[in-house]
Amino acid sequence: MAKGDTTRQTILTHAAGLASQVGLTGLTIGALADDLKLSKSGLFAHFRSKEALQIQVLDHASARFVEQVIRPALRQPRGEPRMRALFERWLGWEQAEALPGGCVFVAAATELDDRPGPVRARLVELQRQWLEVIATSFRKGVEEGRFRAAADPEQFAQDLYGVMLAFHHHARLLADPRAESRARRSFETLLAAARK
Amino acid sequence: MAKGDTTRQTILTHAAGLASQVGLTGLTIGALADDLKLSKSGLFAHFRSKEALQIQVLDHASARFVEQVIRPALRQPRGEPRMRALFERWLGWEQAEALPGGCVFVAAATELDDRPGPVRARLVELQRQWLEVIATSFRKGVEEGRFRAAADPEQFAQDLYGVMLAFHHHARLLADPRAESRARRSFETLLAAARK
Repeated sequence: MAKGDTTRQTILTHAAGLASQVGLTGLTIGALADDLKLSKSGLFAHFRSKEALQIQVLDHASARFVEQVIRPALRQPRGEPRMRALFERWLGWEQAEALPGGCVFVAAATELDDRPGPVRARLVELQRQWLEVIATSFRKGVEEGRFRAAADPEQFAQDLYGVMLAFHHHARLLADPRAESRARRSFETLLAAARK
Repeated sequence: MAKGDTTRQTILTHAAGLASQVGLTGLTIGALADDLKLSKSGLFAHFRSKEALQIQVLDHASARFVEQVIRPALRQPRGEPRMRALFERWLGWEQAEALPGGCVFVAAATELDDRPGPVRARLVELQRQWLEVIATSFRKGVEEGRFRAAADPEQFAQDLYGVMLAFHHHARLLADPRAESRARRSFETLLAAARK
């Protein structure tokens, strides 16, 4: 990796952590420069605009998500083991130290839903891809007879997303110590309904 | 209602609608003064600080929520009719014209979860009260033998919250036309599990 690339990765990793706390719109080139003790003009040369920085933070977080959650889970056998790996790794991602404010996509979702523009468009694209990974993994389980034929993969994806959002809400905002064990029970109930 | 009170209510109603789109931290006395064609100093005299304004917006939205969602639902018979009324009215609230950006509490939750202070504290209090209303309504259904004795009211409350957050996410961010019908199916599945 060239030096410029390493610097860029360091900046983006820090920026994603910051965005998990202050939101993507709270992320400014100035604040980032202060945190990293870099010059504002140097950072500006890397990213050119706040919007470009925000989009690169989303892409950077997405690449880490693919690496840490999706790719290892897709190595698991189809059906229940794969769905379980997706869920467990997603839960781990949400609690990772690199994202002190929790999932950067969850924070960005309510922040950007009423702000049209290229950053929102990129977030929508990434969220659709992730929901498609969940639905496709579930569909393969149906095709192989591991889940009920009548089970709806998109319904499962929306429901699983809800389990994770409620976990984020109860753990992050309400500091509820039982948020995680409840999320696991919700997941088991979803899986049990798919098996029937 | 005295004139000062009416003015305050008009300001808070508009502020809540604005906060549903730009977030509570995006809500400034300046932007509100521009929107309502009032003087910044007059508005400042009403609210004294941005934090006081934010807390009053939360309290104002909470009073409307009690009026439009909780109070009418609690007039329904215990058990399924009451849970259904809570869910349907909550869904209606989320889509109300007065909140063009959707539920102001959902937007505030991810926005404030990493920002300690009096605004976050008030939001946490209001969210706990609402979750307690859901859990208590469910518990009364259990006590009257309408739901399974083994069903966990706090689990039901977290799960129902997840259904609504996933609805918000799919409808608001992804503009998915099936978000609402899926949310209704998720609710029916939760209720069916409680009945067993």
